[in-house]
Amino acid sequence: MTVTPYSTGILPYIPFFYVIWSDDLLSASEIQVVRTAITADTSLTREEKEQLLSWLDKKNPPGNAEIKSWQQLISKSGVPLVESETYPLEAFALKVAHFYKGADVPNPQLQKIERNLGIQPNHYNHLFNVEVVHQTFATRYSGKALDALLNTKGWEVIREFREFLKQDHFRWSIQRDKSPFRRHVLDQLLLLAKNGWGAYAYPNANGGKEDLETYASIFEHLVFVDGSLAVKFGVQFGLFGGSIQNLGNPQQRSTYLTDAGKAKLLGCFAMTETGHGSNVRGIKTTATYIHEERCLVIHTPGKNDNKEYIGNALDATLATVFAQLIVKGKNEGVHAVLVPLRNPHHEVLEGITIEDNGYKLGLNGVDNGKIWFNQVKVPVENLLDHYGGIDDKGKYHSQIKNPNKRFFTMLGTLVGGRICVAKGALAAAKMALTIAVKHSLQRRQFNDNIKIQEDLLLDYPSHQLRLIPKVASCYVYHMVLQRAMKEYAGNISDDKRKIETQVAGLKASITWFATAAIQESREACGGKGYLLENRIADLKTDSDIFTTFEGDNTVLLQLAAKGVLSDFNAEFNSGGFSSVLRFLGTQLSDRFATINPAYSNKVDSEHLYNPKFHLHALDFRLRRLTYSAALRIRNYIKKGMPSYQAFLKTQTHLLALGEAYSDVLAIKWYYEKLEELPDDTYRTLLYQLGALHSLSTIRANAEWYLEQGYLGGTKSKAIRQRVERLSTELRPHINALVDGFGIPDHLRTAPIAR
Amino acid sequence: MTVTPYSTGILPYIPFFYVIWSDDLLSASEIQVVRTAITADTSLTREEKEQLLSWLDKKNPPGNAEIKSWQQLISKSGVPLVESETYPLEAFALKVAHFYKGADVPNPQLQKIERNLGIQPNHYNHLFNVEVVHQTFATRYSGKALDALLNTKGWEVIREFREFLKQDHFRWSIQRDKSPFRRHVLDQLLLLAKNGWGAYAYPNANGGKEDLETYASIFEHLVFVDGSLAVKFGVQFGLFGGSIQNLGNPQQRSTYLTDAGKAKLLGCFAMTETGHGSNVRGIKTTATYIHEERCLVIHTPGKNDNKEYIGNALDATLATVFAQLIVKGKNEGVHAVLVPLRNPHHEVLEGITIEDNGYKLGLNGVDNGKIWFNQVKVPVENLLDHYGGIDDKGKYHSQIKNPNKRFFTMLGTLVGGRICVAKGALAAAKMALTIAVKHSLQRRQFNDNIKIQEDLLLDYPSHQLRLIPKVASCYVYHMVLQRAMKEYAGNISDDKRKIETQVAGLKASITWFATAAIQESREACGGKGYLLENRIADLKTDSDIFTTFEGDNTVLLQLAAKGVLSDFNAEFNSGGFSSVLRFLGTQLSDRFATINPAYSNKVDSEHLYNPKFHLHALDFRLRRLTYSAALRIRNYIKKGMPSYQAFLKTQTHLLALGEAYSDVLAIKWYYEKLEELPDDTYRTLLYQLGALHSLSTIRANAEWYLEQGYLGGTKSKAIRQRVERLSTELRPHINALVDGFGIPDHLRTAPIAR
Repeated sequence: MTVTPYSTGILPYIPFFYVIWSDDLLSASEIQVVRTAITADTSLTREEKEQLLSWLDKKNPPGNAEIKSWQQLISKSGVPLVESETYPLEAFALKVAHFYKGADVPNPQLQKIERNLGIQPNHYNHLFNVEVVHQTFATRYSGKALDALLNTKGWEVIREFREFLKQDHFRWSIQRDKSPFRRHVLDQLLLLAKNGWGAYAYPNANGGKEDLETYASIFEHLVFVDGSLAVKFGVQFGLFGGSIQNLGNPQQRSTYLTDAGKAKLLGCFAMTETGHGSNVRGIKTTATYIHEERCLVIHTPGKNDNKEYIGNALDATLATVFAQLIVKGKNEGVHAVLVPLRNPHHEVLEGITIEDNGYKLGLNGVDNGKIWFNQVKVPVENLLDHYGGIDDKGKYHSQIKNPNKRFFTMLGTLVGGRICVAKGALAAAKMALTIAVKHSLQRRQFNDNIKIQEDLLLDYPSHQLRLIPKVASCYVYHMVLQRAMKEYAGNISDDKRKIETQVAGLKASITWFATAAIQESREACGGKGYLLENRIADLKTDSDIFTTFEGDNTVLLQLAAKGVLSDFNAEFNSGGFSSVLRFLGTQLSDRFATINPAYSNKVDSEHLYNPKFHLHALDFRLRRLTYSAALRIRNYIKKGMPSYQAFLKTQTHLLALGEAYSDVLAIKWYYEKLEELPDDTYRTLLYQLGALHSLSTIRANAEWYLEQGYLGGTKSKAIRQRVERLSTELRPHINALVDGFGIPDHLRTAPIAR
Repeated sequence: MTVTPYSTGILPYIPFFYVIWSDDLLSASEIQVVRTAITADTSLTREEKEQLLSWLDKKNPPGNAEIKSWQQLISKSGVPLVESETYPLEAFALKVAHFYKGADVPNPQLQKIERNLGIQPNHYNHLFNVEVVHQTFATRYSGKALDALLNTKGWEVIREFREFLKQDHFRWSIQRDKSPFRRHVLDQLLLLAKNGWGAYAYPNANGGKEDLETYASIFEHLVFVDGSLAVKFGVQFGLFGGSIQNLGNPQQRSTYLTDAGKAKLLGCFAMTETGHGSNVRGIKTTATYIHEERCLVIHTPGKNDNKEYIGNALDATLATVFAQLIVKGKNEGVHAVLVPLRNPHHEVLEGITIEDNGYKLGLNGVDNGKIWFNQVKVPVENLLDHYGGIDDKGKYHSQIKNPNKRFFTMLGTLVGGRICVAKGALAAAKMALTIAVKHSLQRRQFNDNIKIQEDLLLDYPSHQLRLIPKVASCYVYHMVLQRAMKEYAGNISDDKRKIETQVAGLKASITWFATAAIQESREACGGKGYLLENRIADLKTDSDIFTTFEGDNTVLLQLAAKGVLSDFNAEFNSGGFSSVLRFLGTQLSDRFATINPAYSNKVDSEHLYNPKFHLHALDFRLRRLTYSAALRIRNYIKKGMPSYQAFLKTQTHLLALGEAYSDVLAIKWYYEKLEELPDDTYRTLLYQLGALHSLSTIRANAEWYLEQGYLGGTKSKAIRQRVERLSTELRPHINALVDGFGIPDHLRTAPIAR
């Protein structure tokens, strides 16, 4: 036993005090934790307690010389730090004490400090100059349990589907030449359809299960297989099939939908034109009704009015074509018409021209193409007439009288597709992050000169900060998209304006998040991330277009903003300013509580980790941006500016508003979901993830909060520190967290992630 | 003539006042401009002057009803706004006045206001509900003149090279299969070499021109041709040839370098290993000297110790292999050895195994491979011994005694490569932005219901904000990299630590900037940006690895930070903490001026556009981060923490410091360059670009400036508004600005950019 100035009681506290004082992160409430534990420690004498408590005074902290002597005392003991102990710091402290004094009795108060402060081996093992016995980090969480928690709906089906995907047909391989790639993807699609996976969302009468939520999970899993397959699947069953399901009549459903679900009938969804993507209302293709022949003439009037980027264009025999419906010389607005493209020999029909769109950044297994129509006649029965049709007398009729409302109601059926796109992007992010995390738990680079082994990438603070907040956001967004799909599927009214606003915002936020997360993952894997075999490259190129298709993100955020400004009464797609203007006044009556300086500088951890704070902060931003946008637009209009121009002048403001709306929604729905969960252990973890996501979001807009005085400088800095600290605290659980994404081992084929 | 309450003198001012008051952007100094002009206007009566001046009181502005009446007065006139007029607003205002009163005399004071406020048609044409006669925006700037301004060095050679690139061999085409792609790229390389373009940087004695700066411009232009060609070129002439040039002796140069420059000898640069990329010092390949045979034995000791990602691996006959040099049982550190890989029949030599690295995200025209050495003997003459060799007695010698210093001196020769990588990334960003800008000047989407034609994408404020600041940054970074190359080429001393620090920071900032700029460009082009034919996709995938190779950005920023902390005395590569620690004290003596509240809330445009403000703000951040990082590290060390751990604890801080260093350097060098330029017209434009880049950079760190109290809330908001406004002001010149990048028309093959 070696000499030390400290008594047996004090000694095991020394490593704790070293951890506490080597950094100055402890808040008042955390100091209270330590104080309470010391006071309750019956093994200590009064003098020992006094000594220990005197070291807890933030105003008069222990001096550097003292702290350094603690460090030396610890190092000199030669005791290794064993990360896999249940209470590693307590165990370590007791062993250090044992070295000096021979005492080695578990101390429940030390355990309490260790638990309540949330300190983890990776949080402090850098502090000691001692051997660290790295083992798989002890975590009380299991990936399997998390996976089950994330998949409350359709869990049995998902597990069955994962087994189904074990077949060789779904094994990923590098594909460069688009022709064989497309054939391969088509074969996979047919196999899925044959086994009933495509029709899940359809009515029972059409071979489905009327279960849109499980359909979305199936779609998500296909992203793990291959992005092209997922998109081809979405086009055939979601867009093409979905258009018949949602816009067609019962007769059309029984004629086409059942076969579409079995992929006996392959179809495409021809909405976008070369000249018109975001502005769907402006498409130029016409469907002119000729009463004498009871037919519609589908026509591409000019250059750039052809359909473009149409998935399944080379395989499809039927297309849902969106066109301006002209009846008796009057344009009744955009409607969908089923137009046969090919005969049973797969020859393109007369009047139709189809061209391959060629190679793309990604998704080269999908046959996107351009389609031209030259006076193509189809029977009027081919009009998908749920929202508007032509009667026997050749008269147009619709149960929705207002053409704007009719238009957005029809397009409202795209919402399910937008949720799937966001889910697909999120799946790609999950997979890329899983690969990057698993790689960083094996890959070592650089070390201290003393150590033999180099450090794991994920033990670098910068690497933690790069990946861990993004893993947390995946959990939040996963729950949120489940909720969105549930809301959408459960919404039986035709007025889907609120969910449409919600999904517009979320689709933009989540697809942009995914692009950023995949980019971080690629860079975090260095050169290995650049090799196709490691999958991140394809995830990146395949999902890149998700920020554009099914609604360009910039356009969607403006739609979301219009929804907010009009209290969800906006006519949703292009134009539609007047409905917004009508509601502007109501947004101006909002009252703001003045932010108390004590609040804007409150930095204790309870407060910063509190969901109430997160919701308050994000909601404050939303309300303030709503108010100020409404005020600006109203002022422009008062000065005589046309409303279109007033919206243009405030465009960047509206984008921020749309984003703020999505931010609030995400965290609100996430926390609401956590309230439902029974299991306390996992709730704690999930709340930590929520806090990390929320604080990262607040941090991303810190300059705005500071400008508004909502955050003081100290609090803003504290939030940055908390984001770093939470990332470090979650480090031991990160492997379980990515396993919780439920990507089956057989699909995680990246060599660096094995 | 129609009735109006305004007099002939007042009337032409009405459109100006409408523009001024419909937005509240005018600062005090700008109001002064208007006030002075009115006062000087001799055509006005005293009453008219009083009336006009009364409308300039910010505290008591004209009422909404009044402003609206101005708008109606303007609209009712039916006068179209002709954007191509020299003074469009003045011309417009006079025509409006003419409509009401018949007066139509040019007014020099109105011209003065228009010029001094920097208001442009695209700034105000949204405000009026009038027909806008869109024509090519009048700009006094020419792309050709800008191109010449950007290329002061080697201008004749660059123009000659552009002509050379008109050959069919350099016409871009879609390449999917790596084998023919690589053959094609190799053919291009040989053609370039045959015409002397590869050897530009080499000594005259070896067929070169000793002109590294022009070499870098040639490299940049190859990125416009194809990313794979540029990288293959860089590997052969820059890395492989450069290693012989910089690390070899005259004998080696005459034996190998001349042939390398002609591509008669193809070689590779084998530094990175599967297990060691960033930590070059830790590579495992050994070169063991055997005195009896006067040879070195090159060996790959274990799994993951093979060379990887080695460009030219499949074509090369010789490799510069980096290995631990073992002489008489002592490891003398990393040295470079020339190792033959193949015989003249292109068969791989005994003991050597080479494998294709396979498909990558991009650059599939480059033959990256893995190389293993199994006890491969080469004569000791193959040691590139400029910095360390073995004498006849088998004794190791070096003019640099300190092994650390020797190591970083050898690696210092990588600096030129890093500048080229940054230049290459920037070239990719320029090309992507050019395509996106040209597309957005043709593509229209959405409109006001009144107008027939839809609006150009680039007339949307969000689109301007997306692209224009990035175009500005390209100008800044272009000038900066030219300076960096000049400094590097002109630095004849062996101690390149300062330029190494500078380039480490710039390479990281610029490659990350490029990744972001290309991503914005892709998204800004929507679906069209996703098609390979439009080039952005390849620019994105090819340049993505630039953030990783020639030094991972995260690692480089830490090197830059260490350079700053040690006043450029850090031993640069892995490890090297002690030299930093020695200098920490000096960084702590820095004094800060307290920021005056008047300064932190100064929002007038002169101040915000003033280079002095930009430099002050960026430098303040650098100094503050240096000081606080030094303080933190010193405190950790005082408390007994080992230095490696102290650096790890402050890692995210150091990353910010590295970035701040690069930010200051960029803008400092840019403004210094502008001082040299003779032409006032272009200087004005280039200062605007500098202001936009600087304010965007400050804005990107706004939360930090607010936390520090350097910016007040009002000023921070004003900076955001100025970034938007500058983007709008530069809108008329944007086509000239991207033409100024000098991408030859024949290389800009994207159909959407024609």
